Amino acid sequence: MSSVKIIATGKYLPKKEIKSEDIEKENNLEDGYIYKRTGIKTRYYSLDETLEDLAINSVKDMIRKNNNLNIQDVDMIVTSSTTYNNMMPSLSFRVQKYFNIKDCMCFDVLAGCSGYINALDIAQKYIATSSAKNVLVIGADILSKNIYHDIKTQILFGDGAGCVLLKAIKEDKKYISNIKSFDDKNQILTCSMQHELFMNGKEVYKFATSKTVENISEIIEKSKEKIEDIKFIIPHQSNIKILEKICKKTGVNMYTNIKRYGNTFCASIPIALDELFEFNQIKENDKIILLGYGGGLNLGSILMEV
Amino acid sequence: MSSVKIIATGKYLPKKEIKSEDIEKENNLEDGYIYKRTGIKTRYYSLDETLEDLAINSVKDMIRKNNNLNIQDVDMIVTSSTTYNNMMPSLSFRVQKYFNIKDCMCFDVLAGCSGYINALDIAQKYIATSSAKNVLVIGADILSKNIYHDIKTQILFGDGAGCVLLKAIKEDKKYISNIKSFDDKNQILTCSMQHELFMNGKEVYKFATSKTVENISEIIEKSKEKIEDIKFIIPHQSNIKILEKICKKTGVNMYTNIKRYGNTFCASIPIALDELFEFNQIKENDKIILLGYGGGLNLGSILMEV
Repeated sequence: MSSVKIIATGKYLPKKEIKSEDIEKENNLEDGYIYKRTGIKTRYYSLDETLEDLAINSVKDMIRKNNNLNIQDVDMIVTSSTTYNNMMPSLSFRVQKYFNIKDCMCFDVLAGCSGYINALDIAQKYIATSSAKNVLVIGADILSKNIYHDIKTQILFGDGAGCVLLKAIKEDKKYISNIKSFDDKNQILTCSMQHELFMNGKEVYKFATSKTVENISEIIEKSKEKIEDIKFIIPHQSNIKILEKICKKTGVNMYTNIKRYGNTFCASIPIALDELFEFNQIKENDKIILLGYGGGLNLGSILMEV
Repeated sequence: MSSVKIIATGKYLPKKEIKSEDIEKENNLEDGYIYKRTGIKTRYYSLDETLEDLAINSVKDMIRKNNNLNIQDVDMIVTSSTTYNNMMPSLSFRVQKYFNIKDCMCFDVLAGCSGYINALDIAQKYIATSSAKNVLVIGADILSKNIYHDIKTQILFGDGAGCVLLKAIKEDKKYISNIKSFDDKNQILTCSMQHELFMNGKEVYKFATSKTVENISEIIEKSKEKIEDIKFIIPHQSNIKILEKICKKTGVNMYTNIKRYGNTFCASIPIALDELFEFNQIKENDKIILLGYGGGLNLGSILMEV
């Protein structure tokens, strides 16, 4: 069995910056209303860029930041999104075509806003079984198109993309995942084919501040690690209130960037990972927990050694 | 590492039977025009049934045919389709909810008409790494909604769903896969978010009768099996002309049911598998090759011991 190592990361936020204060003005909300409730000051909206553009730009960022990294040896591309814009050829195939990567397996994963956890976990299974060596895992979402009718979603969501390149290595590195779907209350957070979002914020808050904490306890137990040895939890950036609650309940440091980007669904975890590496916040052998939760209902964590 | 065993299968075709002769009459085509070119006599169209209904009904068929099989121990549901009708919660989550399955991981795969091969291969990776024990893999597509404007697609496509239940076993059973995507010519077979299909038949024929044969040679070589020891190739049921050509080039028996169902995209391989088991055409320890090919472009084979 091979282990996985993150060897490069990238991110892309579209150009159009949207300030919370501007949304407040447009909607006659008091000053600071949005930041107080969500922790979000800015988010970015795609104007003429497609989901494909965002995904490709995140990979370009990764290539640029890593000495013009050659990605021709990528043998698997997995994408996750809740706002796909083509059924066939779907996103992963379009990324393959753009970068002209030969002999590569491609597929897209659809598993709600925490789909990035599933995509990463699938990639790890291919590496563990020596079925792939270099896997590009991309998360991208464009949520801005259909949120204007609903202030509850408008204040939260932004667009973005992030990617991680996983490599098979012989050295033993810890990797454990704990992913589950919940069959009750699956209507509290939905996205139609036209990318219309619906959210019952109260119910999502309840789910996201209870089941996540249980999930982290379980993965700590399964992994036989101590909670104090976890450097960071890197959670899906949903809402600062949810993140503060999880942080308080688990007692682990948490990386948040929701202030700058809002909730970007499948892009939030790879964007956060990219920043942690860029800002030298994590180093070789650190243990981190990635935590996804959201529509499905889907919930999952990955405890991995960097 | 655990091996995979197919322990149950099921299928569902919607109620409305559409005869090729009726399509011929409506379109002023000569008698026998469609059968001669495609090998298709009938296909089934969904009227008021959704993709979810088709998928669920295939699982119900599996349960019924297997002494009211209890599927509560399913710990993973993977679906494949090119005509998803919900971004979140997506198909696998809806199936989980319908059957009230607890503690189960769900996700959907999007990888063109041969996505079922990817879904099955992902399931095998989870079983091989002891990450799942009982995996339900469903393929379903509703292609009938947007094909009336184009006689080239109308004569070929039908709706359907099929499923396979994979179990982790300790006994060693051969399993090898060979899945690749091709980055050139990815516009020859496309499906929009509104499920509008486009096909360049000539180019698809060229791809499907050459790259498939290469892929099978490669998997035979990788597996160290002899081609004459393969009981059946179970191909994606695309068009009888393509299947006859692959059959002739490889020299292996091929199971076809396209005459009755047309091309049902992601459903075609699990429906064919279900029939092979139902008609006692394959037995324990037989070696078979599943072969998928289609939009993406995507291409993949799985050589497995039953």
